[in-house]
Amino acid sequence: MKRYETLADDIARSIQSGLLQPGERLPSVRETCAARKISPSTVFQAYYLLEGRGLVESRPRSGYYVAREPVRLPPEPEAASRPDGASRPVDISDLVFQVLQSSMDRDRVPFGSAFPSPLLFPLQRLGRALAKAATHLDPWSTVDDLTPGQVSLRRQIARRYLVEGIDVSADDIIITNGAMEALSLSIAAVTKPGDAVLVESPCFYVTLQVLERKGLQAIEVPTHPREGVDLDALAQAIARHAPKACWLMPTFQNPLGCTMPDANKRALVELLARNGIPLVEDDVYADLHHQPVRPPPAKAYDRDGLVLHCGSFSKCLAPGYRIGWVAPGRFRTRVARNKLTSTLNTNVPAQLAIAGYLEGGGFERHLRRLRERLAQQQAQYVAAIAEAFPVETRVTRPLGGYFLWLELPAGSDALALRQRALAHGMSLAPGPMFSPSRGFGHCLRLNCGHPFDARMAEAVATLGRLASG
Amino acid sequence: MKRYETLADDIARSIQSGLLQPGERLPSVRETCAARKISPSTVFQAYYLLEGRGLVESRPRSGYYVAREPVRLPPEPEAASRPDGASRPVDISDLVFQVLQSSMDRDRVPFGSAFPSPLLFPLQRLGRALAKAATHLDPWSTVDDLTPGQVSLRRQIARRYLVEGIDVSADDIIITNGAMEALSLSIAAVTKPGDAVLVESPCFYVTLQVLERKGLQAIEVPTHPREGVDLDALAQAIARHAPKACWLMPTFQNPLGCTMPDANKRALVELLARNGIPLVEDDVYADLHHQPVRPPPAKAYDRDGLVLHCGSFSKCLAPGYRIGWVAPGRFRTRVARNKLTSTLNTNVPAQLAIAGYLEGGGFERHLRRLRERLAQQQAQYVAAIAEAFPVETRVTRPLGGYFLWLELPAGSDALALRQRALAHGMSLAPGPMFSPSRGFGHCLRLNCGHPFDARMAEAVATLGRLASG
Repeated sequence: MKRYETLADDIARSIQSGLLQPGERLPSVRETCAARKISPSTVFQAYYLLEGRGLVESRPRSGYYVAREPVRLPPEPEAASRPDGASRPVDISDLVFQVLQSSMDRDRVPFGSAFPSPLLFPLQRLGRALAKAATHLDPWSTVDDLTPGQVSLRRQIARRYLVEGIDVSADDIIITNGAMEALSLSIAAVTKPGDAVLVESPCFYVTLQVLERKGLQAIEVPTHPREGVDLDALAQAIARHAPKACWLMPTFQNPLGCTMPDANKRALVELLARNGIPLVEDDVYADLHHQPVRPPPAKAYDRDGLVLHCGSFSKCLAPGYRIGWVAPGRFRTRVARNKLTSTLNTNVPAQLAIAGYLEGGGFERHLRRLRERLAQQQAQYVAAIAEAFPVETRVTRPLGGYFLWLELPAGSDALALRQRALAHGMSLAPGPMFSPSRGFGHCLRLNCGHPFDARMAEAVATLGRLASG
Repeated sequence: MKRYETLADDIARSIQSGLLQPGERLPSVRETCAARKISPSTVFQAYYLLEGRGLVESRPRSGYYVAREPVRLPPEPEAASRPDGASRPVDISDLVFQVLQSSMDRDRVPFGSAFPSPLLFPLQRLGRALAKAATHLDPWSTVDDLTPGQVSLRRQIARRYLVEGIDVSADDIIITNGAMEALSLSIAAVTKPGDAVLVESPCFYVTLQVLERKGLQAIEVPTHPREGVDLDALAQAIARHAPKACWLMPTFQNPLGCTMPDANKRALVELLARNGIPLVEDDVYADLHHQPVRPPPAKAYDRDGLVLHCGSFSKCLAPGYRIGWVAPGRFRTRVARNKLTSTLNTNVPAQLAIAGYLEGGGFERHLRRLRERLAQQQAQYVAAIAEAFPVETRVTRPLGGYFLWLELPAGSDALALRQRALAHGMSLAPGPMFSPSRGFGHCLRLNCGHPFDARMAEAVATLGRLASG
């Protein structure tokens, strides 16, 4: 049992025994850290687990309290996935493109969408930054810094690494057309067609599509819905398949929402370093943590330059601006060269606009508001799912991001449910999209990045009815 | 002998015989068309050839006149290239990256640069269009039209095809991160690693780098410095190597500046169609024609959807905005899917800004001014080269774009010249960059896209001295 689980169980017993009364404030994180000699993130994990079980509730800017009336919340998925361990070519794109096509319609309820509501972003303020950048554009900046990107933006990104205590300088960064390009360039830099790549099970479908396009093999590694990839299984897969790269999302994974504990991230990086295997780290959701502290990326433990760390402003600040980046470690030259011959450069005014916005200092304030909104929305969606879905339905409680992963009762068919949901004007992302072996037939990913209004409440109720019938 | 050559020779004889006097206006294009039953573009080709020989001169918005004092102009290259006809893997990138690195310094004279002066573009007006687009951005547009790009921009581009009489609708177009991405996606859509691709000799080095990155073989086809690729040789190469694609720049080719006559473009498309071979057409310079009429692309003759036509606003309107497009014919779905999993989308505000600028109607006016500037600059550079370079030097007279191709006297070493030029603060693009077989050792491409001011005059003089010594 993990430390945070022990702590959570202790508190749960205190609540059941009446030592902690309904409405009473839990000990502060600082007190608990000092008393138990554990880290703040362990305490938060315990409090989150209890919140997920409906035993405690958080009040913004105040702290955690024993829930006044215990809510019936759906259970969390508990079992790690059990893929068959094979290395296989990927052939998933037809299914994925079908599903994506049906997610693009503005009039559909976007449960299957990969994007949060664009209304959550400061597009007006960014627009002013862009207007300023565009009208004061130094003409020569359009042909300067061609491949790595504008130095002012690389400096701002490096500053954020510095705050996290991560050793990445402006020169280590390459600006890309969104994280998508960062990831695609990264995997291309460390593999050749036919190579095998370790991925989570389930994993983000675009990862699978990139492997398919590049003629790479995928090895699905068992993944726990709260703690991420199973390191023992990962070690076995390395021994068995000699993969050439590992492509993971260690923080707020898409679709599970799971986050590897810090110690696991460190162990992961060490395991890969011992085997000389590069890690492509997709870290686009980390800024959307619901708890106060940003989980460190695996890159924080990288001593060998083997981690290619990919980030983006698309999910936390500027959708549609298509500005991402990669800190490719020792693969910098290869990534830069591939970038030069695939897209050459990234939109200059947008780079300068985001750099200007970050310099202005509004970013952290925006992020705080966004995180609160996303955490609140997630709680609302989970409660609504508890009302509407079959009682055996399990639902994740991610500590960040805006995706829920639902395990429907055994025998449910998420692909069929998707068809029925479409007929009711909703898009859905069924489990088999997220697996090269087409597993997770009874699972689905649900977007909770859109404000939970009356339309959404009705849609969740309808979907629950469809899932029950 | 081609029609335009016959016409040019007739006029040259009239000048030599005194029938046409120095300073006298040449017959108007309309008169000559009617009298000889030939097309305007043939007449313009003849006049350009005569201008290139120093026998006539053009006066903006007035017409062509017999030159008052015959200028000594360097001869044009006349011989088509003679590559060895092999199909070979490409290994050019190290040389190219070395050269590119030395072209990025703002303080160097940019003879080796691939970009014209950014001061030639209406960046202020575009900036205002971008500011307007950004501050009035519909938030949902950031997640709409993900892969093909904003419909308002696709409509504007389709409108320009329509004006040219080319059957490409808004739905046939995919917006890309510059032409670079359009080309890279296009060649990926029609080849697999190991396939052979037909290219011009010499050809744009980035073409070679893309082939190298994708593990493709290159077959260099003999190319004439004025008329482009040799169709007989192309047919032989098809028979010999069974290539899977052809990648050409039929209009204002980089580096030669050559343009295939319309009849050759048509014959090219028919030849490829008979063999079922797709044509990736790089057409990024076509809007920079110095003659009044825009040469049609090969796409104009495409009846089978086999031409993937790639364009861009980077060279004619908006450097640094990274907005290009492809009309991929029957390969649309494949290109769209590759785009989705490589960069997902293109900067939305920039798409809307360019669409807004095009709607505003200032584009044609800007283009007219830009073309005049480029034509004038080219004449100034050619004249300066005539002064400074060894007399045996041959120089192209492209009918559009902003590159000159110089054949130095036999035995010259362009790679060595590049080193000496660097020491004098100038970048250079030596011939071997443009050939997988590292031919063209005595050639170089010279950028004449920068205003010919005192600094440039001095630089050309210095370079001529270096080339002579």
